[in-house]
Order: sequence, then C-alpha cells, then structure tokens
Amino acid sequence: MSSILVSNGDFSAGKSVPAPVIGRVASVYSEVQATHEIAKLFPNLFGQPSALLVPCDSETSQAPQKLKIGVVLSGGQAPGGHNVISGIYDYLQDRAKGSTLYGFRGGPAGIMKCKYVELNSEHIYPYRNQGGFDMICSGRDKIETPEQFKHAEETVMKLDLDGLVVIGGDDSNTNACLLAENFRGKNIKTRVIGCPKTIDGDLKCKEVPASFGFDTACKIYSEMIGNVMIDARSTGKYYHFVRLMGRAASHITLECALQTHPNITIIGEEVAAKKQTLKNVTDYIVNIILKRADLGYNYGVILIPEGLIDFIPEVQQLIAELNEILAHDVVDEGGLWKKKLKDQSLKLFEFLPLAIQEQLMLERDPHGNVQVAKIETEKMLIQMVETELEKKQQEGSYLGQFKGQSHFFGYEGRCGLPTNFDSTYCYALGYGAGALLQYGYTGLISSVGNLAAPVEEWTVSGTALTALMDVERRHGKFKPVIKKAMVELEGAPFKKFAAMRNDWAIYNRYISPGPIQFVGPVSNALNHTLLLELGSQA
Amino acid sequence: MSSILVSNGDFSAGKSVPAPVIGRVASVYSEVQATHEIAKLFPNLFGQPSALLVPCDSETSQAPQKLKIGVVLSGGQAPGGHNVISGIYDYLQDRAKGSTLYGFRGGPAGIMKCKYVELNSEHIYPYRNQGGFDMICSGRDKIETPEQFKHAEETVMKLDLDGLVVIGGDDSNTNACLLAENFRGKNIKTRVIGCPKTIDGDLKCKEVPASFGFDTACKIYSEMIGNVMIDARSTGKYYHFVRLMGRAASHITLECALQTHPNITIIGEEVAAKKQTLKNVTDYIVNIILKRADLGYNYGVILIPEGLIDFIPEVQQLIAELNEILAHDVVDEGGLWKKKLKDQSLKLFEFLPLAIQEQLMLERDPHGNVQVAKIETEKMLIQMVETELEKKQQEGSYLGQFKGQSHFFGYEGRCGLPTNFDSTYCYALGYGAGALLQYGYTGLISSVGNLAAPVEEWTVSGTALTALMDVERRHGKFKPVIKKAMVELEGAPFKKFAAMRNDWAIYNRYISPGPIQFVGPVSNALNHTLLLELGSQA
Repeated sequence: MSSILVSNGDFSAGKSVPAPVIGRVASVYSEVQATHEIAKLFPNLFGQPSALLVPCDSETSQAPQKLKIGVVLSGGQAPGGHNVISGIYDYLQDRAKGSTLYGFRGGPAGIMKCKYVELNSEHIYPYRNQGGFDMICSGRDKIETPEQFKHAEETVMKLDLDGLVVIGGDDSNTNACLLAENFRGKNIKTRVIGCPKTIDGDLKCKEVPASFGFDTACKIYSEMIGNVMIDARSTGKYYHFVRLMGRAASHITLECALQTHPNITIIGEEVAAKKQTLKNVTDYIVNIILKRADLGYNYGVILIPEGLIDFIPEVQQLIAELNEILAHDVVDEGGLWKKKLKDQSLKLFEFLPLAIQEQLMLERDPHGNVQVAKIETEKMLIQMVETELEKKQQEGSYLGQFKGQSHFFGYEGRCGLPTNFDSTYCYALGYGAGALLQYGYTGLISSVGNLAAPVEEWTVSGTALTALMDVERRHGKFKPVIKKAMVELEGAPFKKFAAMRNDWAIYNRYISPGPIQFVGPVSNALNHTLLLELGSQA
Repeated sequence: MSSILVSNGDFSAGKSVPAPVIGRVASVYSEVQATHEIAKLFPNLFGQPSALLVPCDSETSQAPQKLKIGVVLSGGQAPGGHNVISGIYDYLQDRAKGSTLYGFRGGPAGIMKCKYVELNSEHIYPYRNQGGFDMICSGRDKIETPEQFKHAEETVMKLDLDGLVVIGGDDSNTNACLLAENFRGKNIKTRVIGCPKTIDGDLKCKEVPASFGFDTACKIYSEMIGNVMIDARSTGKYYHFVRLMGRAASHITLECALQTHPNITIIGEEVAAKKQTLKNVTDYIVNIILKRADLGYNYGVILIPEGLIDFIPEVQQLIAELNEILAHDVVDEGGLWKKKLKDQSLKLFEFLPLAIQEQLMLERDPHGNVQVAKIETEKMLIQMVETELEKKQQEGSYLGQFKGQSHFFGYEGRCGLPTNFDSTYCYALGYGAGALLQYGYTGLISSVGNLAAPVEEWTVSGTALTALMDVERRHGKFKPVIKKAMVELEGAPFKKFAAMRNDWAIYNRYISPGPIQFVGPVSNALNHTLLLELGSQA
C-alpha cells in the first residue's frame, strides 16, 4: 500500500515559540498550585519553550554530529506506529547521515533489559505504511522505581544514546518526561521526545490535536458499523448493540456516531455529567425502541462505549461495596450476604441480569477488583432492555418484536493498515522527533498542527511535555499526570451529534462508509477524522 | 463506489447444451432412484436442457414483447444482491424496452401478500454496487403449502408476470423450481429463474462455481482476521479464537485460512470425516499451543467454523438426549436427571464448561430444540483449552501463559460493499436471468462460468435446477432438495491447506490482506476468491 508522504521533508529547528500556559485545572488543586508542583517535579525542564520546526534548505542548516537514537513503542497498538519509526529513520538518513537507530524490543522493558535491534533500511522497508507494532513489538511495563530508572540509565549510557523517542499514550508520555528530567538532572546527554499514540483519542490538547491511530481505528469500526446497519435495515428484525473500544473516554464512540448515524449512541461523559443511572440509560434506549416500533421499525443500531460502566456512579458504588464484601465476608448461597449492601446498591444488583451478577461476583483481578473491562456491557443492556420491553408488552404499550445482537469491535481496529491520514501524520511525527533531537531538545512531545488542513499546510513542532501536565495526589505525594482528554459536552463535535441524534433515532439516516481506500477519489474525501474537522471549526 | 461492469452485455439465448447428468449420490437412495423420484416430482421440467447465452448483435436478435418481471430476495443477505436486480433491470432496458420490473418486498412473503414496488432508474440508482438487501428487503418465509402456492399464483396472475427471478440459497432455489413446475403444470405463463446467493459458499456445483457474496464476506472477515493476527504478534500475549459465520459447511473458514494463514484452523467436514470428539479437537489445539510455547510464542490465531458442533457426532447425540429429557422429564437441581443420559453423553456433558452446560439446558427454540447457533463455540473452546493447559502446567509440561480472546465475525460480512468480483458477477447473473426469461426459459438457475478467468472470458448460461436436485425422505414422502456443497477433503483447496497447516501452526506465516480496494492495483490482484482459483486448477 502506498501513501502520500509529507511533501516537504525539509524541517529543521528554527524559531522558538513561547511555552503555552497550562490551561487545564486539576480537579482538586488549583491551577497555580498544580503549576507550582509541576515546577518542583521537573526543575530541569519546567518552563522551557516549545519549538516550531520551519522548512530550511539542507545546505544552509548547521549539520550536527551523527546521532545515536533509540525508539520504543509503549502500550496498546495503534495504526501508524511503524511510520513514526520510518520518519525518524528517514530524518536521520536525510539530515544526519551515518546515524544509528536502535529499536527497543517489547516496549519499555526492552530499555530496562537493553534488548534492542539496530534498524536499517531492509528491516524497516516491509513495515512502512503497515499496521501493528510487530517491527519491534510493544509492552505495558513502566519505568517507575528508582531501580528501573537506573536500568534505563545504564542502557542509554551503554548505547551512548543522544536521544530516545517514546511512542505512547498519556502514561508513556508522562514517563518520557520523567526520563527526560532524570537524564538532564544527572547530566546524561540522552534527550527524550514523546509521540502521541492511542486509538482512544484521549491524548490531545491544543498543540496535539490528535493522537495517531484514532483515525484508522474509527474508520475500521465505522466500516463494520455501517455493514451492520445495512444488515439491520435489510432484515428488519434485529437491534444491534455495538460496544466500541475506548474505556476512559468516549471519543471513538462519538466519532463513529458522526460517521455512521446510528439510532442510539451512549456517550459516557454525558451519562456522568447528567448523573444518570443504569435504569436511566435503559429507559432512554427503551423509549426510542417504543417510538420506532410505532413507526414499524423493529430494528436499529446502538453504539455503547466500552467504558460506560465506569461513568455511572451507582455502578461504581456497587462495585466498591462488592469488592469489600468479597474480600472480607463469606458469600453464602442463600444470599444473606446481600444484606451488607446499601439499599441503593442492593436495588441495582437485583436489577442486573443474572449473568452480569455472576460476572460481578466471580471475575476478580489479582488485586481483588472486578475486571470491569470484561463485563459485556452490550449483553447486559440487551437483557435489561428486553426485560423492560416485556413489561411494556404485558401492559399493552409495546406491540413490536425485540431481538438483540451483541458485538464488540476492539482488537480488529488496533492493527489495521493505517489510513493515508495516519500514515502521513505518523511519518511527520517521526520526522519531527528526529529534528527535535538533532537540535538538542528534550522533554517535548512531537506535535503536528493544523491537521484538518491539507498536508502542505501542516505545522511540525515540539510541545513542552510539562505544559501538558497536571498533578494528582496519590499516597500522600504529588504525581505528575497527563490528564486524559474527555469528550467535551460543550465542544463542536458533541454539539453537532446532540443536534442530530433525535432525528437519527427515529428516521434511519444510516451511512455505511465502506472499507478504507488508499487510492482513488474516496481516499481523499475521507482523509480526516470528523472530530478534527469539527474541532477546528469551533 | 464504481466497479467494473460486464464488458460485453450482448447476451441472448443462443444454442442449447445437453442437460448435465445428475452427478451426486443421495445418502440413502441410489442415483437412479433419486433421478426417478425427481422425474416424478418435476414432470413438466425434468430433462430440460441447460441454455448457454452467446453474444449476438441486438439488431439481428428477435425482439420479443415487452415483459413483466418480478424479482425477490430470499433469505440471509449477501453482498451483490442489488447488482443482480440492476442487471435484470438493465437487460430489460437494453433488450425489451417498455418492460416492467416489480420488486417483491420483504422476501417470499411479498409474493404471497402481493407487496411490491415497481422499480425504475431512480429507485435502483443509489443501490448499484452497494451491499445489503435494503432496496426491497428480504425475508425467510417459504412458499410450501398448497395455500401458499395459491397466493403466489394469484399474485403472478394479478400482475400478469411473464417471469419471476428468485435470488436465494439452496432452499430458495428448490422453492423456485417447485414454483416453476407448479406454474407450468397449471399453464400459468410465469416462468421462474433462480440466482445462486449465499455468503456460506455451499450452493455450488460444476455449472454454478460460486454463490455470490462469498467473495466479499470472506475478504471482510480476512481483513479482520489479518488485523487480529498483527495484533497478536505485536503484543505476543493472546490467543484469538475467531468463530466465522457458515453453519452447514466450512467454506468460509477454509477460504479465510487460505487468505490469512492462521496457526490453527478447524474444518467441520474433516472433524466429521475423522469422527473426532470435542476432546480430540481440544487436544489438537492444545498440542499446537504447547509446541508454540516451546518456541517462545504465547500467542496465535485460531479459526473455528460456526457449525463446528454440528459436525461432532457425540455432541449431536448429547443434544438429542437433552432435548428428550427436557421435553418429558423433570430437571432436578440435585442433578439426578443426569442419570438418564447415556454414559458417553454424561461424560461429555461433565467435560463441558459450566456456561455451555447452562446454554445447553436453557436456550430452546419454539420446537424445544437447542439453538446450536447461539452456543458460543469459541468461548467454549477457550475454556476447554484453558482447563487442559492448567493440567499441563501442573504436570510441568507447559511453562507458557495462555490468554484467550473470543471473536465472532458474522453480521459484519453479509452487507459489506461488494468486491469488484461480486459486483460484476452479480450483474452478469441478473443480466443473464433477464435473457433467459425473455427467451422463454423456466426452472433454470442463472449460471456464470469460468469465473477464475478474466471477466471477458466468463460464460453466461442457465442450468436446469432439476439437475442440481437430490431427494430426501421426510415424513414418508420424497422431498426435493438442492444438497449443500460441503468442503471436499479431496479437493484442491483443502489439500493445499492441509499441506501448509503444519508450517502455519508453528511458524507465523500471517497474511494481513487489509481492506477491500475498489480501484488501484490491489483491486485487480485480489479479484478472485482463492477457492475458485484453486478449484479451477484441480
């Protein structure tokens, strides 16, 4: 598969722009307090400016020494990761000939264990524009303890690294910033640059308008949703409940909704903001099904974010109580243990379908907590809707037929062939990261701006990671975090969705976008994610 | 989306070719006996020749009267159905100007209830090359009883139909043949032509090398399987168990295996031929997992046909016994009822995971039978494999880590945008059906041959439906059936798969074909299904 590559690869560090003001308020601590804590946590990095890369003639630019650079893929896969690596590699070939690029194997553990491969053209070639992270693989380990930091230091010193590129999500970029601070504090020459990766789309801010992989994953899911929609309309007898990956935030669900126009879409952030209960969500779905039945439609498509349960306070409360009870009490067959539940939790527990009750009682992670991600929310909702509709049927207020079909679209989207957008975006991220390292920057995240415009108008820069930071208080200490960006209920994308959803609910405005195209007119027409386009209009 | 259309649309009925000899032996009755019974069941149609359509100049062909034609979509969706209708419509426009095309709504019920829409260019245009059956929708009703036949007769006489095109699978085409016989026997002028539709790929024979939709569905599933493979290799920690639609035969699973090279593929027909038990299948999977663990691979992809359970004799036996017990006995909580199971069935029942035991005990269709399709075979196998691996771990013969992830790919593939192959194939089927009707044929199935060759070399003809027939004895009567074509263990596709699977099991030969492309080089390279290409080489 070919893709459009960045047309103007001649980036090098030019002027600096002022560091953006920290714009987001920590939930507990004031902005001033947070800024103060971040300044204390990152004494060597705090306050450094962001850097805008501007094209220049390669002849006129200073050409620093050959570089030794390491790159690591961290966390869950996202389409385009290989192109970030290709971008770094090509930058080094173009601008710092004779440089070396090491790929750390299996994620951050590869840094700590000094497991790496020296990447060359033959190694990289088959992975260009391909999905997956299998060129060097990924992992979820973190570099957190003093001992782990020490292993990382040993590795970068052993390999004499000038720079390290960390491709990852919010946690991994926080980690990248801590590494950068640590190296600078210890006068280790290795500089660290992050790259924004996650299909969930929850690592973004003004300077980093999108994380890579989101565009591809949403288009793969939208292809499947579109197919299921046409299926629903063709047979006229199923309600398809589609759970979509993305636990912390509902960006994927919102983007897919805007791309396909389902009858019902649940956005976790709205459920939380309105303090809705599971019963509220069920009733919302049931009411639309009733209205559709009146119009003769006994079918539909419903999108549910993977993390729905996490957004419902009463479910969180129930789970907390269950965790306590299961850790300390005997759960008797007769059900006497249920008396230990608070009234509201007991009511909710009894309201849940049996299978979900069992999942809540049985599945525990090693820390004794319910594995919320394993709860099949889509099946749970089908059962709850079914129960409510049966009541309505007995009352005579529902004459339709209800058959639910459950789907979970997740793993299918994380390693698909990247769209032209993600291929190009990732290449630019990698190329920019190379330039930032060559010009001596550290503690920045590679940032490509103006993404809703044509590629020629994109900007490439590096944003201070500390400017993305917030602090959380854990175990009596301040911990730096890059807060996940949630769906903004006042933002243009959600507002557009909210303005149209009542129409989508009743009438069928299905859009089936079909498979991602790499050449031909449609490949251009669908070049951008809708959230980006709408966001940039706002 | 555009597609390549049949380059030479100038087909009209030319010479006739002899009817093919009935080549398949009924399981109970001899070929001679079956032929005799078919002759008795179809006194008006039996023995009629097939018809080959050859290009001719539209000027020189006789131009019969304007036609009134009905078309119906019957059964489950398959990508390309709309192009069959477009093909019929265009034929009528090209060759019998002033003709009328009625689309019966919601499947065969639309014929019986005389629910139809008159199709015109504006109506058809938006559906050309699009997936789904939503232009006129489909349904699963059958025209079987004398009363239902009477309703069908009333409709075709009311609309003064010259012809009816039935787009459907094996049952629907059997039904089409019965209708054709009935109309001819009663001197009703309406002629009936079938079209081979099913994503399952089990309606095929020498003259009908493929049913439409199979190509698209397999490519959509292969896209998803390929993505999951790259995901598996990138993280290195999951075994993905993928159940694929296709209950009666395992063609889809075989085609997807040939397209993607999974580590393990279960083919139902082989399981049945080797009289394998569920334990055998589990052991086969476990052994490969053990070998892979020795090589350091704790991940993989496993394909399972939806109908696996139907192929295992011991499971069939257990289900039959359970159906009896549940219909006539009390199922006590203590489990005394289990004594009524035969030894082997009891052993199997106890071997099954709890959740599956429950599914077997609870879910019954209106006839009191287990709904086998609702059993999540992939989850069942994960649990059984897990249990066996835990034993091996305790014995010390397995040091790996096993985490299973389950997937079911089904509804996503039935209504996708048809591939260029299916678009073109369907258009030719419809165009051919129009020609067959114009030239007075009835009781034939529209057949496009030489499908593995370039489109220019395809042949278009009509094959006598009686030549595809077999008989089954039901309730003391002979009933005509088009037997489902199963995966042939001696055929070239299965043999190719069997020759490679040991290599695929141990080494990772994954192929991720990516999304279907409609333009560009890849759209041609992947124009044909592998089963077709391999089959034509045999």
